[in-house]
Amino acid sequence: MSNAESYRGMNVSEFFAKHKEVAGFANPTRAIYQTIRELVENSLDAIDGSEEGRKTIKPHIKVVVEKVEASGRGNEEKTWCKVTVEDNGIGVPYTVMPNAFAKVLFSSKYVLKQARGMYGIGVKAAVLYAQSTTDSGIDVVSSTALLEDVYSRKLRIDTLNNEPIINAYGSWKKPTAWRGTRVSLVIECDWARARSKVLEYMARTALIAPYVQITFQTPEKELYIFPQKTSTIPPPPKEANPHPHGIDVETLKQMLAATKAKTFREFLERDFQSVGKKSSLYFIRELKKKVKEIKEDTPPAEVYQKFNGLLSTIVDMMKTFKFKPPQSNYLSPLGEELIVTSLKSMYKPEWAAAIRRPPRSYQGHPFIVELGMAYGGEIQPSEEPLLLRFANKIPLLYEVGEDVSYKIMKEIDWRQYKVEFPAPLVILVHVVSTKIPYKGVGKESISEVPEVEQEIRNGMLELGRRLREYISSKEREEEVKTKILAVSKYLPEIARSLVVLSKEPHSWKPPKPGEEKEVLLGLIKLVSSHVKLPEKESSEEVIRKILGVKKSGQG
Amino acid sequence: MSNAESYRGMNVSEFFAKHKEVAGFANPTRAIYQTIRELVENSLDAIDGSEEGRKTIKPHIKVVVEKVEASGRGNEEKTWCKVTVEDNGIGVPYTVMPNAFAKVLFSSKYVLKQARGMYGIGVKAAVLYAQSTTDSGIDVVSSTALLEDVYSRKLRIDTLNNEPIINAYGSWKKPTAWRGTRVSLVIECDWARARSKVLEYMARTALIAPYVQITFQTPEKELYIFPQKTSTIPPPPKEANPHPHGIDVETLKQMLAATKAKTFREFLERDFQSVGKKSSLYFIRELKKKVKEIKEDTPPAEVYQKFNGLLSTIVDMMKTFKFKPPQSNYLSPLGEELIVTSLKSMYKPEWAAAIRRPPRSYQGHPFIVELGMAYGGEIQPSEEPLLLRFANKIPLLYEVGEDVSYKIMKEIDWRQYKVEFPAPLVILVHVVSTKIPYKGVGKESISEVPEVEQEIRNGMLELGRRLREYISSKEREEEVKTKILAVSKYLPEIARSLVVLSKEPHSWKPPKPGEEKEVLLGLIKLVSSHVKLPEKESSEEVIRKILGVKKSGQG
Repeated sequence: MSNAESYRGMNVSEFFAKHKEVAGFANPTRAIYQTIRELVENSLDAIDGSEEGRKTIKPHIKVVVEKVEASGRGNEEKTWCKVTVEDNGIGVPYTVMPNAFAKVLFSSKYVLKQARGMYGIGVKAAVLYAQSTTDSGIDVVSSTALLEDVYSRKLRIDTLNNEPIINAYGSWKKPTAWRGTRVSLVIECDWARARSKVLEYMARTALIAPYVQITFQTPEKELYIFPQKTSTIPPPPKEANPHPHGIDVETLKQMLAATKAKTFREFLERDFQSVGKKSSLYFIRELKKKVKEIKEDTPPAEVYQKFNGLLSTIVDMMKTFKFKPPQSNYLSPLGEELIVTSLKSMYKPEWAAAIRRPPRSYQGHPFIVELGMAYGGEIQPSEEPLLLRFANKIPLLYEVGEDVSYKIMKEIDWRQYKVEFPAPLVILVHVVSTKIPYKGVGKESISEVPEVEQEIRNGMLELGRRLREYISSKEREEEVKTKILAVSKYLPEIARSLVVLSKEPHSWKPPKPGEEKEVLLGLIKLVSSHVKLPEKESSEEVIRKILGVKKSGQG
Repeated sequence: MSNAESYRGMNVSEFFAKHKEVAGFANPTRAIYQTIRELVENSLDAIDGSEEGRKTIKPHIKVVVEKVEASGRGNEEKTWCKVTVEDNGIGVPYTVMPNAFAKVLFSSKYVLKQARGMYGIGVKAAVLYAQSTTDSGIDVVSSTALLEDVYSRKLRIDTLNNEPIINAYGSWKKPTAWRGTRVSLVIECDWARARSKVLEYMARTALIAPYVQITFQTPEKELYIFPQKTSTIPPPPKEANPHPHGIDVETLKQMLAATKAKTFREFLERDFQSVGKKSSLYFIRELKKKVKEIKEDTPPAEVYQKFNGLLSTIVDMMKTFKFKPPQSNYLSPLGEELIVTSLKSMYKPEWAAAIRRPPRSYQGHPFIVELGMAYGGEIQPSEEPLLLRFANKIPLLYEVGEDVSYKIMKEIDWRQYKVEFPAPLVILVHVVSTKIPYKGVGKESISEVPEVEQEIRNGMLELGRRLREYISSKEREEEVKTKILAVSKYLPEIARSLVVLSKEPHSWKPPKPGEEKEVLLGLIKLVSSHVKLPEKESSEEVIRKILGVKKSGQG
């Protein structure tokens, strides 16, 4: 029948095998970068996620990229790389190893927790790329603190069923107390073109995770060591409940279906953050005005089933009701100090500042935006500000043009802040959240979620105002100095005249040594009390310097 | 146990409900744009996909956006929109309706065929957005040409299982021969901010699908009608086999597993395009030099199972072996003529040109790149070329900054082509393929797939060269005109002198009327034979015009 179309379903691993570019694997350059990124970020999460050994284990990540012989192949233009990443983080239990590394949409990150990974796709997309380009899978070696053995698996993804295929098993007794994970993949790569981006990624990752030692060996056998800069390891990110202000109907439904609470009121208090005994009571009282059927003791399942059509009313009321603000104690931002220190060490500016916006939430996810700004000094002037983007402590290097921060930066009229381009201006934006609203699963740019956008804009404008103050005070200083310079050159002449005029004509004799200087110093004091320099140097000193006059008693 | 992480799987509809921004639904502005886009593009595919009625049915798409009362809601800031899109295309059989509209990763587009849709996600992502924001599903009414009834369904997606929920059924006898599909959704929207983008989208879609009448009614009850401009409906896109040059290991495996061919040779000839009896024979002969085990009559299943590790060798040989080039007859580009016509009607330039690159393939998918360029005239000069992007006959409006075409455009030094910015330059890029390598499932920008990138770059450079020729010839013309002008003003004087000098002194008498003009015309002929104007006007005419002299006999 010519007029019929053939419909079918597709499983999600077939989807990502067919659409590699969607997960960031568009070509051999991006693929090697993306593979390293996904593995390193898993390792960082594995280090952050571990409660035990925080004082005794010095966190490290080893990254090795090697070129490997592509034996028996006809095409000499292409190169294969073996990427190996090892960490001493929490480790992956052998029972979940196959799914964790070889089943798309399977993860330990599907909880409300600040983590670098979140989709359950990244490493699997790298495995699919390995399978597609070099017909190889992934090798995993791992152990947790409590296990006595180390376990190894050679895995592939069965793309027709999205299930792991285990090609080889292994295990052996641990000689030491080792825990951690080592992962290897062989993929088609274009190392020459990816090299600079990968190195930049490593350096910026080390900067933002100064508690981890990172070593990186390139295919040229160069070894880059980013040593641990602080032994203070941030507390592991905690799991959080969603805040009622950021909920949507679909999320509410899923929560109602899954909750262990017996009543609607218990559900509110137990499954949301910032909802206490009082606010749950008041909220239900308000809600009853619109939805009479819902009472404190209505079972959640009933709310889900019976009042299906009214869930959007509940959600709207949740969004507008005055609950306590979202808690941020399970978010782990960098802090203004670290941002300023980093900016100063990287760019040696004449001015730098940072700001942390108050915690807010979108779609049930709390988030905090931090921003930094640096100006002048050794920063290379350019036609637009240099934008450094970070999210949950990972650098974002690609697709800056589509990032919400870039859009905001371009919308701001920087002349209002006394910045005329080309100018030496660096802006840093760091978003932390239990869920970063990336535009794509390749995790390269953040989308225009209104709540996030507002915080970034407010932060950028606030830093802009501080920068303007700095530039203004610098300008005022310049202005005052010019004024002082103009006035000062007449002071010696005035002093001399005064010395002469202050005496009556009949008693005139040549001024005593030092007499003229006394008058001059007096004049300097007088003038400088009328002009104020905004900086530490006093106007008096400035004038004395201009005139080369020392203070009395100093010679 | 504090040291354990909780792993779990997630189904793909839960994934897209949680990560709405990944499918282009980041905020109420993008959401209304994206919803309209997905529905309109499905309708266009439904119109293109139908073989029957191509002569009798005038294709049309009706789009209606209405603001709807969000009853009983607490939040007055937000608005809800009802989007309805109706077409008279091929229709959706009632048996597949639930899956086609309410199961993520289920589609009729999972074949190698040029289509606007391809992921099996778009409409479902819109349904998930409706469920999340307004707690409503999707209403579908459809019938195909062969059915006697019209069928209606109210559908939702069960996000915990990625299965459709049918909330209401309906069917009724067709009074007329109607076929087509009408779909309605209610979503949270920010119409005010989306309006201009949606209108631009409509206008540009109408431009590129001139065989469809599109009507669009806005919430303000304004009616935009884009009438059918041509009754020539392009032939329906045909399904294609992959070309061996663009295959990868994972695709080869899936093909080997699924083929109905009995032998490896039959597999090559039957499941690939551009592989004939001869080339399959030669290819296997070449292959035997590296992989002895594979013969012409080896069953495909055996190749798949036994020689797993060597599949990458087969793939590499496939990529480098000289097969016939990919066929492009199942791709439907716009054509150079339509591109030039469109550019001229839109921008009224002084110059426009278009080019179609030869068909190529990437990852098994044939593609064609077409480009257009327009310069001068009524084009507003700007700091960089205005880039118009299309893919499989749909306009791409968002995320231009990350598109491969934009990257290429920025890399080109346009001064080489005599373009100094600000300049009035428009560049159009249209990619058609059985699979467009979008960066994300929101389908807004094309990623840097090397083969595609190369064709776009070559096309852009070629058009650049043509533009340079045009600008050069214009410059030469100007130059010649200046020269002519300089010389011409002396001609009357020289003519007069010649008339005088050409006679012997003793026989001197005043020149006869017309005598001087004769000489002048002779001189003009002489001079103009030495300077050539590149355009239609002859130098002779130009000089006569400058001097205000008509040709002899013309008075």
